Amino acid sequence: MDNKKLVVLTGDRPTGPLHLGHYVGSLQQRVTLQDECTQYVMVADLQAMTDNVDNPEKVRNNVLEVMFDYLAVGIDPKKTTFCIQSLIPQIAELTILYLNLVTVSRLSRNPTVKTEIQHKGYGESVTAGFLMYPVHQAADITCVKANLVPVGQDQLPMVEQTNEVVRSFNRIYQKEVLVEVKGMVSAVPRLPGIDGKSKMSKSLGNAIFLSDSADEVSKKVMQMYTDPNHIRIEDPGTVEGNTVFTYLDIFDPNKEEVTVLKEQYRRGGLGDVKIKRRLIEVLNTFLDPIRARRQEFAKDPQAVMKILLNGTDRTREVAAKTMEEARTAMKLIYE
Amino acid sequence: MDNKKLVVLTGDRPTGPLHLGHYVGSLQQRVTLQDECTQYVMVADLQAMTDNVDNPEKVRNNVLEVMFDYLAVGIDPKKTTFCIQSLIPQIAELTILYLNLVTVSRLSRNPTVKTEIQHKGYGESVTAGFLMYPVHQAADITCVKANLVPVGQDQLPMVEQTNEVVRSFNRIYQKEVLVEVKGMVSAVPRLPGIDGKSKMSKSLGNAIFLSDSADEVSKKVMQMYTDPNHIRIEDPGTVEGNTVFTYLDIFDPNKEEVTVLKEQYRRGGLGDVKIKRRLIEVLNTFLDPIRARRQEFAKDPQAVMKILLNGTDRTREVAAKTMEEARTAMKLIYE
Repeated sequence: MDNKKLVVLTGDRPTGPLHLGHYVGSLQQRVTLQDECTQYVMVADLQAMTDNVDNPEKVRNNVLEVMFDYLAVGIDPKKTTFCIQSLIPQIAELTILYLNLVTVSRLSRNPTVKTEIQHKGYGESVTAGFLMYPVHQAADITCVKANLVPVGQDQLPMVEQTNEVVRSFNRIYQKEVLVEVKGMVSAVPRLPGIDGKSKMSKSLGNAIFLSDSADEVSKKVMQMYTDPNHIRIEDPGTVEGNTVFTYLDIFDPNKEEVTVLKEQYRRGGLGDVKIKRRLIEVLNTFLDPIRARRQEFAKDPQAVMKILLNGTDRTREVAAKTMEEARTAMKLIYE
Repeated sequence: MDNKKLVVLTGDRPTGPLHLGHYVGSLQQRVTLQDECTQYVMVADLQAMTDNVDNPEKVRNNVLEVMFDYLAVGIDPKKTTFCIQSLIPQIAELTILYLNLVTVSRLSRNPTVKTEIQHKGYGESVTAGFLMYPVHQAADITCVKANLVPVGQDQLPMVEQTNEVVRSFNRIYQKEVLVEVKGMVSAVPRLPGIDGKSKMSKSLGNAIFLSDSADEVSKKVMQMYTDPNHIRIEDPGTVEGNTVFTYLDIFDPNKEEVTVLKEQYRRGGLGDVKIKRRLIEVLNTFLDPIRARRQEFAKDPQAVMKILLNGTDRTREVAAKTMEEARTAMKLIYE
């Protein structure tokens, strides 16, 4: 496929600052994709509202935090269009149209939503907004006619839900208005949290944030999960599932030295503190320029807001065109 | 209550021309209300889409038919603001916010929606759009801060649903942005169809339309349900539940003569054809000026569309103000 024809939409719920898991899982990919595709990065404030209905201020405040993170890691407003979901009314308008194309039982069977409802313990109290957020997401994606969305394996059902809407709409209104989207599943395995759990996550309290100071990084690495059976330095240790080595594999540019360290650790004679000190240095070397850029951007929040609002204006224009095409296909034109 | 402070929202799904049942149940009331309140009449094209997803053209075409009916019965664009739902994006935007305030199980328990789902035989195939249309309706009502909606008894649960949204929103965001609404239940009993069934309805094929010709009215009245036991003219007949008399009670301006006719019918000696001929005359006398005005308006559909679009512009301004207040209360302001 001609890459110039690729339109990518990605984004995050602005519920907290971004962490190394975001970097490995999506941010670094966005830095690459912006050179190859038309890329939209959406700050999904309304989607964040689905489970922060009592706390819009948290969502609002994290919009800029997330933007600082984006800019700090090198997502470039000259190459990427940033936008804020709640300022694009066409997303809401398309959602209303799409809700007629999706049954409630189909939404209830969506595996991603089902799992989330279980995890959050919503049960009978699940809100309409939460149940139908995949439809809202379909509107996010289709309003800019994105044909590629980077996703985790667990989000593939969301892509399928979007494509069902796309196919229904185009079939019923007999026009190829909406564009099917391909989920690009990341080859990178998920970064575990510092507790060794499968997923780094703010809510699990096991995250290293891009905005953490060198000291915070140091403290967190020192608490990091290693090999619980590696008690004395001279004991042989296990490298697999040892979070420090997982991180070194990803962040340490000197792969040869990591290989040597692994052998030594397996044999015995290499202490956890030593490898943790190395990881602290590696992470801080990696994070230093990100932190520096982040501080620069954070000095002028107005300028960053302007970047977001300018991108939102451009996105709204594209979305308005899509909405107009949808209306025309449906012959719901009044003039 | 000071009537000038009353803001009324009413409307119809544009799925067909309006009939005598609409006139008796709501249109004549709107003609009165427009002198007493700020009145919005919404052509609910998106709500019509919830069960006409395959047939937007039907919806689109009936928008003007409904407008002709409105204007013909005397709803006056100088006194009433007409608007078209799909051209007010704030309704969609508010709906998205409100969906987070309503649980799926609450929507599933809404008696009006439950009954409709049963009647339409949707079962498991009910769409998300259909289930959540009460929330969409809450956005219709609240976007213009209506505090009065004329409803049938069976629609009171919709009013309650709206007020639940209003109370939740104002409580959570600690500001009286939204306005509670009162359902004004019509004292007028429902006009039965010509088959004597409880409700006149296009889909039941028992309706006399405001746009029916004198001949059509004549034919329909001649088929009208009377007293099935009143076989010969000289037989005593029953007036109660006799559709012809129900209509005469409503439409015949000469109440005394109707009383005399009822007595005669009860005694025996008054034929169905005779009372039907009287009703035909009464209805055509009533409908003649409506038909004449309707024809006038139908000659210039562009002018009628302009009335609708001008009203929509005014409504959109009011809705934009409400949306801005909602954003401000939620502190979801970006600038």
